[in-house]
Amino acid sequence: MASNVDSPAAAPPSGITIKGILSLLMESIDPRDTRRLISLGIGDPTVYSAFHTTPSTEDAVVHTLRSQNFNGYAPTVGLPQARRSIAEYLSRDLPYKLTSDDVFLTSGCTQAIDAALTILSRPSANVLLPRPGFPVYELIATFRRVEVRYYDLVPEKGWEVNLENVEALADENTIAVVVINPGNPCGNVHSYQHLMEIAETARRLKTLVIADEVYAHLAFGDTPFVPMGTFASIVPVLTLGSLSKRWIVPGWRLGWFVTTDPSGKFRNPKVTEYIKKYFDLLGGPATFIQAAVPQIIEETDEAFFEKTLDTLRLSSDICCAMLREIPCLSCPQKPKGSMAMMVKVNLSMLEDISDDIDFCFKLVKEESVIILPGIAVGLKDWVRITFAADPTSISEALGRVKSFCQRHSKR
Amino acid sequence: MASNVDSPAAAPPSGITIKGILSLLMESIDPRDTRRLISLGIGDPTVYSAFHTTPSTEDAVVHTLRSQNFNGYAPTVGLPQARRSIAEYLSRDLPYKLTSDDVFLTSGCTQAIDAALTILSRPSANVLLPRPGFPVYELIATFRRVEVRYYDLVPEKGWEVNLENVEALADENTIAVVVINPGNPCGNVHSYQHLMEIAETARRLKTLVIADEVYAHLAFGDTPFVPMGTFASIVPVLTLGSLSKRWIVPGWRLGWFVTTDPSGKFRNPKVTEYIKKYFDLLGGPATFIQAAVPQIIEETDEAFFEKTLDTLRLSSDICCAMLREIPCLSCPQKPKGSMAMMVKVNLSMLEDISDDIDFCFKLVKEESVIILPGIAVGLKDWVRITFAADPTSISEALGRVKSFCQRHSKR
Repeated sequence: MASNVDSPAAAPPSGITIKGILSLLMESIDPRDTRRLISLGIGDPTVYSAFHTTPSTEDAVVHTLRSQNFNGYAPTVGLPQARRSIAEYLSRDLPYKLTSDDVFLTSGCTQAIDAALTILSRPSANVLLPRPGFPVYELIATFRRVEVRYYDLVPEKGWEVNLENVEALADENTIAVVVINPGNPCGNVHSYQHLMEIAETARRLKTLVIADEVYAHLAFGDTPFVPMGTFASIVPVLTLGSLSKRWIVPGWRLGWFVTTDPSGKFRNPKVTEYIKKYFDLLGGPATFIQAAVPQIIEETDEAFFEKTLDTLRLSSDICCAMLREIPCLSCPQKPKGSMAMMVKVNLSMLEDISDDIDFCFKLVKEESVIILPGIAVGLKDWVRITFAADPTSISEALGRVKSFCQRHSKR
Repeated sequence: MASNVDSPAAAPPSGITIKGILSLLMESIDPRDTRRLISLGIGDPTVYSAFHTTPSTEDAVVHTLRSQNFNGYAPTVGLPQARRSIAEYLSRDLPYKLTSDDVFLTSGCTQAIDAALTILSRPSANVLLPRPGFPVYELIATFRRVEVRYYDLVPEKGWEVNLENVEALADENTIAVVVINPGNPCGNVHSYQHLMEIAETARRLKTLVIADEVYAHLAFGDTPFVPMGTFASIVPVLTLGSLSKRWIVPGWRLGWFVTTDPSGKFRNPKVTEYIKKYFDLLGGPATFIQAAVPQIIEETDEAFFEKTLDTLRLSSDICCAMLREIPCLSCPQKPKGSMAMMVKVNLSMLEDISDDIDFCFKLVKEESVIILPGIAVGLKDWVRITFAADPTSISEALGRVKSFCQRHSKR
């Protein structure tokens, strides 16, 4: 039998994944510890009571389901009313109007990433990814036979993109520069000025930008969220997003792939046909959830969004305040957005911790607290802390981290 | 810019698609025709009032949604309770028991097809597909760089697989033989004996079987549905299925990819890891729909399934009876399953119809009835009729087809 079932080595999906390492951490909990486990490992806020979607969002889906009008197939690119609604929603923050034809619905933002890399791929293609970053990009690129090249985010500059790095890595086979903003795992928010510089760099390099905006609008610091599409007249942008984070429904799998491109490169009939054919083979989100999108977008109260931002601001503030009391941990910048932050571990101050993995495994064993080793997002001897949790949980977890660090500190 | 956006030719998704041709047919309706349009073109029964899912199925999803426990991420392979429930459901008809580890949830059966071809693919791979068949297979194979080779289904033998054909086409790079049973577009149901012969042929060829059983249990003739997994001790089987057709909820996008393989080839840890990594990049179905699966499977009344079969039997009977009154159309076998049948057009009896495409375009223009040209499923000068419609609609549509054929017959 000539298949990967005999030798699954054609695409080598090696290395650490977030889910893989979190499973191993879960298995390392000390069963004798009577305290509750606190996981600040994964960006799923729905496990904490402070984060619930709105009743109107839930009602919208019950309504479309109960109508029995949306049990059948949707067009593979998405229901027209959902595409139109998302086009209008995204256009509110752009200097030009998107149309429904620019919007393609996906099963969560993950499928939108896969669509972007697959549609752009060709032999010898490479893509520029941020480090630290989101490891599913590398996994997808490997399966879709796109070479991965990492550019650095600079902690001393608020995790800005190292543009010289980008210029040095790009070549004629570079299909896109991926920009995740607001940033996971760093909690950074790129400024208007910096986004414009990225767009200009990408134009010079004759490539385009994949703007991962799954955390769009989740900016609670002094830098407002600006969509990359603002600069789409400089360089074509593929905007990826979803309801997942802002509406706190990551399990609903309602994402989008949007051609943000006033130059019209993506409106070439051949390109449009190519994108449509690719969408013919995707499962796509459930039709009745798609049908609820217009009501969800129109009827969500601004107060709900404000409350989420207030909670994230408070939780991240508590996190930063408590980190300041732990000498061996440091954070280069207060988080300004998303739901996670990167924290540096000063190993020279600890006496029996060899690296970030060792830190996290000993931490869960001794304190029943899960945080993610930085190596899982490309940065060794850092850790990622997800602060999308109740303030009390954050406070208790960081208290335990403090005890842990004191216990392991050099005298 | 080195991407398919400049020259979308890396994967050439050329040719006719069902959705593409149906759109063109829709545009050809004569607006002056005051009669209602009747579409027997696509296999989505939800548009007809005779086909509705059960209240308990709908209630199960409302319940999991309202519980607010399933708004978060599910494991990418699927929720454990849904995997277990599907394993038990499929095991009822198998000579051995599947476990939850064999079941991976997908966004509809389409994503299961994509997963199967992608996971099995490797350089120079080819896959054997039935002709007539389901064109999304070719589209997926093209994007995933798997060569397509067609074996024939034999109309004179009740659309059995031409096994000599399969043997002649296979080589050391053949990753699988795809078997769609009950059959779309032919409405055939393979016998126990024939399925065993297919399994033995696949074993001789050292390949495996992809069993597309999206129409599982929709057999209403004298041949009972037998899952291909019955013969999995002869050859490993990947079983693909979904809630779509049997529960009449194709828009819910709840499908499955199942390793039906008592030999344990797919339980090799490397293979399991490879499959899991691939599922890490899929969007997957909505978590709350997954969570409803156990209740849906346990609480659906047998009477509901019987009613669907009765309706399909009645509609297909009416269809066949009326076809017998149309001399230029012939059907080699009464449908025994699925929701569609193939009908041969005897062009020599028609005076101004050049082929199946011409037939369908003139039919919609003159009679406001849509049926699918056979070329879209690989068989020129045949047409595919979907009989998953109310008996009255079937009857009215076939009456119009009869008038059309009379009008165009040679004198």
